Amino acid sequence: MATEQFLEAFRNIVGSQYVLISPGDLESYGRDWTKIHEPKPLAIVFPGSTVEVAKVVRYCHDQGIAMVPSGGRTGLAAGAVAASGEVVISLNRLNKIEDIDPVGLTVRVQAGVTTQEVQEAANDVNLFFPLDLAAKGSCQIGGNIATNAGGVKFIRYGGMREQVLGLEVVMPNGEVLNMNTGLRKNNTGYDLRQLFIGAEGTLGIITSATLRLTSKPRNVQASVMAVHDFNAIPKILGVCNQLAIQLTAFEFFTKKAHEIVLQHAPGARTPFSERYPYYVLLEVEEGPAGGAVMEPLLEKIFADELIADAVVSSTSAEFKELWGLRENITESIAAHGHARKNDIALAINQLSDFITAVQPIVDAAPKDMELVLFGHIGDGNLHINYVGPKSEPFKEFQARARKVEEQVFAIVKDFKGSISAEHGIGLLKKKDLHYSRPASEVDVMRQIKRLFDPKGLMNPGKIFDI
Amino acid sequence: MATEQFLEAFRNIVGSQYVLISPGDLESYGRDWTKIHEPKPLAIVFPGSTVEVAKVVRYCHDQGIAMVPSGGRTGLAAGAVAASGEVVISLNRLNKIEDIDPVGLTVRVQAGVTTQEVQEAANDVNLFFPLDLAAKGSCQIGGNIATNAGGVKFIRYGGMREQVLGLEVVMPNGEVLNMNTGLRKNNTGYDLRQLFIGAEGTLGIITSATLRLTSKPRNVQASVMAVHDFNAIPKILGVCNQLAIQLTAFEFFTKKAHEIVLQHAPGARTPFSERYPYYVLLEVEEGPAGGAVMEPLLEKIFADELIADAVVSSTSAEFKELWGLRENITESIAAHGHARKNDIALAINQLSDFITAVQPIVDAAPKDMELVLFGHIGDGNLHINYVGPKSEPFKEFQARARKVEEQVFAIVKDFKGSISAEHGIGLLKKKDLHYSRPASEVDVMRQIKRLFDPKGLMNPGKIFDI
Repeated sequence: MATEQFLEAFRNIVGSQYVLISPGDLESYGRDWTKIHEPKPLAIVFPGSTVEVAKVVRYCHDQGIAMVPSGGRTGLAAGAVAASGEVVISLNRLNKIEDIDPVGLTVRVQAGVTTQEVQEAANDVNLFFPLDLAAKGSCQIGGNIATNAGGVKFIRYGGMREQVLGLEVVMPNGEVLNMNTGLRKNNTGYDLRQLFIGAEGTLGIITSATLRLTSKPRNVQASVMAVHDFNAIPKILGVCNQLAIQLTAFEFFTKKAHEIVLQHAPGARTPFSERYPYYVLLEVEEGPAGGAVMEPLLEKIFADELIADAVVSSTSAEFKELWGLRENITESIAAHGHARKNDIALAINQLSDFITAVQPIVDAAPKDMELVLFGHIGDGNLHINYVGPKSEPFKEFQARARKVEEQVFAIVKDFKGSISAEHGIGLLKKKDLHYSRPASEVDVMRQIKRLFDPKGLMNPGKIFDI
Repeated sequence: MATEQFLEAFRNIVGSQYVLISPGDLESYGRDWTKIHEPKPLAIVFPGSTVEVAKVVRYCHDQGIAMVPSGGRTGLAAGAVAASGEVVISLNRLNKIEDIDPVGLTVRVQAGVTTQEVQEAANDVNLFFPLDLAAKGSCQIGGNIATNAGGVKFIRYGGMREQVLGLEVVMPNGEVLNMNTGLRKNNTGYDLRQLFIGAEGTLGIITSATLRLTSKPRNVQASVMAVHDFNAIPKILGVCNQLAIQLTAFEFFTKKAHEIVLQHAPGARTPFSERYPYYVLLEVEEGPAGGAVMEPLLEKIFADELIADAVVSSTSAEFKELWGLRENITESIAAHGHARKNDIALAINQLSDFITAVQPIVDAAPKDMELVLFGHIGDGNLHINYVGPKSEPFKEFQARARKVEEQVFAIVKDFKGSISAEHGIGLLKKKDLHYSRPASEVDVMRQIKRLFDPKGLMNPGKIFDI
């Protein structure tokens, strides 16, 4: 039987104990955090080195077996789901931090190292790895690169693309491309690294990377500001730009989001005596000699009449409490009702018009539906939540929320926005890709995919069908 | 005659006055700053819009006419040279700043706008466009993107790749790819923009771009430090990283480079009472509230015994004088003798071993040859100058310097370095590409080129032959 022959070949390459086929393992390694598609992999293979990855890939290539590269499986777009008899190639055993250079500010790591492990390695030499996201304890560097992860420090340090200096990739035919240097500058032809970053594993398997480190951030201060008019929010950002304030976060949430947190998050309390339509959470880095940053900024914003009220953290407990108002939103929504979520991005000067256009669509939805907005507004990244009552059957809610979402995506398209700021496309949003990428661009992507993977075996069906 | 028919077609698209064929124009628009290849274009065409660029390109595509995209022609690798009867498509008339958004920190410009014009437009709204290079008054944004320009602010702000948010490109078949948004985040499939950045016009013609702006830098202070041992230089960088100093420049030059400046630059004087083997020029940004940065840094560096002496600028005249010691090196070398130049990059922790390996090669060269080193050492970017006496015929010097260069490139290859940190490959370094990019990578580049430009008509012969 073909399957048994395949398994035997994998066992010969990686060792018997590193080929898993029990139903529990197939289930667990065949899916990510989306839990929508039914996992159905052929087997889970755990290579122990780049050479073994390359051998497994070459065998699959020669035999026509589809492959799914697999990291921490924390993705939110079903980019690492194996639902059609693919072999899952897990990078779990490629978990070594190979080299750290505190002067050149680089760290070379295998793909299976977690984000948090890189953060800790940087911290051990009194430096900083700036990518930071909720899944950091489980998600892996290879997956971070393949999905071009964003995270909460984006406004200050950029996303994963900006952290990648070098890359080692196993191509779909098993050939290894070694571009894994710590060079900061290299203008010698096409920058092939960039193709693999954000390609969601469809062009090859990332096995190792050299990442940029940075100095540790100085002390930060946080402020939550209450705002009457959404248009004041970009203006506050404008004041920060003009004053050359080093922002480390510029987040936003609506009154509705705030009230849901107050209702559901244990111990949450509003810092203000009344409610306001919008709130901004702003975090700034102090000057090198502890120079005051927040006070003159607040003075200017008050003088410009951009905010109604503001609080500033003066202790680390207060800092944490203020951040809780933003960070507890997702969980509080989950407790509050059914939710369908969009992760969109727009040019910052279009956010106000966009929100004005979206509200009536949600209001016009049949039955009860609430629009809950928050997000990394300083990056133009808005998290849209359509929230309905738990009394409604989940599937019915999803169906009517999908109808609202389609109308909102059409507006995103009009504004030339992105239907996926951070999470990627995967299997989940493949049908919606056209809202953000015209046919001409998808056609170029498809040609590149065919060039790299003519047999269509590497993470097939993700982003688009070939 | 075919040529007359082609010219007539171009005149119909762009207007008669925008098709030039005089010998002087062909000469002037057919070359860049390299002045090595004999220019020999068919004609120079000046489209007035993206639509006209697309029409010209489509016509060339259909008729099998080779094209050279042309900006400010300040390149140093013969990337914009038309030496084989190509049509030069100049972007000079696409010179409009289309939109500036001081809140979203973006500016949308046509490809023919000069770097300096973008700097000035940013300055007009009290913001900053960080790309800065010597050619800024002539070089154009389209060329900056096509060559992924670096410049003196790289250590703080990155190069051109890091400034590009959106891109509009005319493909080799005349189709327009419009990816020209101001989005900061967009994880919807392959990032096609990255392919065109640094491709030296071989995959399409950039017609418009949306660029990232930033807040104005705060006041900066400069120091020149004298160093006995090269190994102290990376250590100084390490101290800066540990103290979280915001470096805006970290430059280096050798005693030889310093002496050539003192000999040839009018008014140049050394800030020290004696000579030292190495010098570092370090520039830091002051704290937001004017917090002291340079003093505690120097105290620490002196305490660690990393430097022998140091001077700090306390007036803008002194600042300029210190920078002159670095900026006058190129011109002083030109006055001093014949020079052959390399622009290489290495991982920072390999610089010391590299320099140790290079010196004996130059010393062993027949007749008189001096090794003059300087560069953006904080980025691992070293400018190598092989300098010989003007008494020697220029061609003879170049021939023997080439032999030295080939040995040095072989060492660059051993160190996995780049033979072109900033300038690109063009026609000039095509034969040396293999030192930095293995055959497997060049093969992938070639396949991408064939995919985008199957007829091989877009800037043919640049970077590699297909």
